[in-house]
Amino acid sequence: MATAGKVIKCKAAVAWEAGKPLSIEEVEVAPPQAMEVRLKILYTALCHTDVYFWEAKGQTPVFPRIFGHEAGGNLCDLLRINTDRGAMISDGQIRFTARGGQPVYHFLGTSTFSEYTVVHVGCVAKINTAAPLDKVCVLSCGISTGFGATVNVAKPPKGCTVAIFGLGAVGLAAMEGARISGASRIIGVDLNPAKFEQAKKFGCTDFVNPKDYDKPVQEVIIEMTNGGVDRSVECTGNAAAMISAFECVHDGWGVAVLVGVAGKDAAFKTHPTNFLNERTLKGTFFGNYKPRTDLPNVVEMYMNKELELDKFITHSVPFSEINTAFDLMLSGESLRCIIRMED
Amino acid sequence: MATAGKVIKCKAAVAWEAGKPLSIEEVEVAPPQAMEVRLKILYTALCHTDVYFWEAKGQTPVFPRIFGHEAGGNLCDLLRINTDRGAMISDGQIRFTARGGQPVYHFLGTSTFSEYTVVHVGCVAKINTAAPLDKVCVLSCGISTGFGATVNVAKPPKGCTVAIFGLGAVGLAAMEGARISGASRIIGVDLNPAKFEQAKKFGCTDFVNPKDYDKPVQEVIIEMTNGGVDRSVECTGNAAAMISAFECVHDGWGVAVLVGVAGKDAAFKTHPTNFLNERTLKGTFFGNYKPRTDLPNVVEMYMNKELELDKFITHSVPFSEINTAFDLMLSGESLRCIIRMED
Repeated sequence: MATAGKVIKCKAAVAWEAGKPLSIEEVEVAPPQAMEVRLKILYTALCHTDVYFWEAKGQTPVFPRIFGHEAGGNLCDLLRINTDRGAMISDGQIRFTARGGQPVYHFLGTSTFSEYTVVHVGCVAKINTAAPLDKVCVLSCGISTGFGATVNVAKPPKGCTVAIFGLGAVGLAAMEGARISGASRIIGVDLNPAKFEQAKKFGCTDFVNPKDYDKPVQEVIIEMTNGGVDRSVECTGNAAAMISAFECVHDGWGVAVLVGVAGKDAAFKTHPTNFLNERTLKGTFFGNYKPRTDLPNVVEMYMNKELELDKFITHSVPFSEINTAFDLMLSGESLRCIIRMED
Repeated sequence: MATAGKVIKCKAAVAWEAGKPLSIEEVEVAPPQAMEVRLKILYTALCHTDVYFWEAKGQTPVFPRIFGHEAGGNLCDLLRINTDRGAMISDGQIRFTARGGQPVYHFLGTSTFSEYTVVHVGCVAKINTAAPLDKVCVLSCGISTGFGATVNVAKPPKGCTVAIFGLGAVGLAAMEGARISGASRIIGVDLNPAKFEQAKKFGCTDFVNPKDYDKPVQEVIIEMTNGGVDRSVECTGNAAAMISAFECVHDGWGVAVLVGVAGKDAAFKTHPTNFLNERTLKGTFFGNYKPRTDLPNVVEMYMNKELELDKFITHSVPFSEINTAFDLMLSGESLRCIIRMED
């Protein structure tokens, strides 16, 4: 290839400061080193994790940085994530250079908000070449995280009752997992009553807004299910919701799965007796999927029309309007906004 | 039978007051009602649960009462235990009468500290008639609880590393489960250094006394295992030990099992991030065994010389010396003390 071993100049969305709009500008992308590939990004989506580290509230600020990790040029992810690391694993060096020779940090080993990026081969999965990248790119993080939390970790038996805490994209993906598993009753829990209508498309049969009750939501759910749900999946990152998700599962066989990432000072606190009667509490990361080996199979589930991805994609913008994707996520309007790199 | 439908007069060990020595005296045992059987008790063991409710510190005091639930006349247990209930499920009535017509409450649906007792048929399991009742009676509670916590719930793969918190009879039974499962390293954790020698008989390879370190014991275990144990089983009832047992398991696959019964005001507290990396926390009751259907199989494991029960039985006393069994347990001298009803 003509660019092999050479620097590529291309456009990238550089985050110069925490919380400030990204600046689309020319960067230099160094050639990949041993065990790395340089990828052309065709589509990427914005995930809340990007926003979380872009806001950098309570996290180590690493700027300037190129965010983005839900991309398709190929699908990218990193099994053992270090959000503070802004360089390549192989040599600790940076492959991006912005104006004035300023090095620009990587993000999650992917940095897909760039026309070209360099990633470790361990972060690349080869998928069905017929898969539409403007759809399956959302499987690189949030959707697989929620979906896998249900199908790989909670494993609801057919006909059971499942509660999903938090009806954002991850929670709705967890709900999609419950729907595909054949759950007969799916209880959505969210503080925003507007979420219920959208959740119905994902199989939600009951909606509970904790604000509507003057007792803990776990008690409400235990009453409405005559003893508790068979499975619950928490997708909020809020410690109180985690506790409710655990305490609302049925004695004897109930399984609660925690997906959300809690703040530094959060605490999960419950009476130990709540475990005694054979309840299970599990955490999961990326839905327990091994990205390289498992993601191609999730793509197949979409190709076979089992997993419905299109309903997650609420918006689409050209790369030049990437900051609109941030606005849509911050306002809660979007589930997933696709960023089209080529127009 | 000559006694069918008639009251039986026999000796029982009546607890008249919390924490006071039991009084062996004549009681009347009413005939069993529908779905009940009246059993002759041959051997019973003292379990810490008896002592716990006999001391009645923080529990509802239910006196006078006949304790005892680890018995063989046949093996008895109750699936859904209500420790406050002192009467039969079927009619809410009591079958025991002591001097002066005083009704005497039942305990755990069994009340085996009596030559005869009445239990619901659901609390009786039929076992191999060749099984020695002076040994297998200990399977009715503590030993099955610990053993099942490991083999049914933690399920350690062969060759893995297991930590056991608390080296009393339940903890040693959990350790016996790890030994039988083929664990290659078994770390015993206890505040009493004298427990290590005894634990070696149960497969203990390493001993950790939290008092010997000025950092949390979970950190000690993570360091000595290069990242954490594959499985842990907590058998103390102490909330701090529960937290340590959870936090010392390895990211990605570690499973912690809580067996102990914590006090009313205890709290299990951890940072939610400890769940994120695919750790599992489970509680278990009676080792997840279904007494009627599963206990006969545990008895077979003993008969086949897989499960070694004899090493749990450290003492044996006649019924007339039942209070000695309490003393031996309170002093920590005994693992299990068999009470012989017929001499």
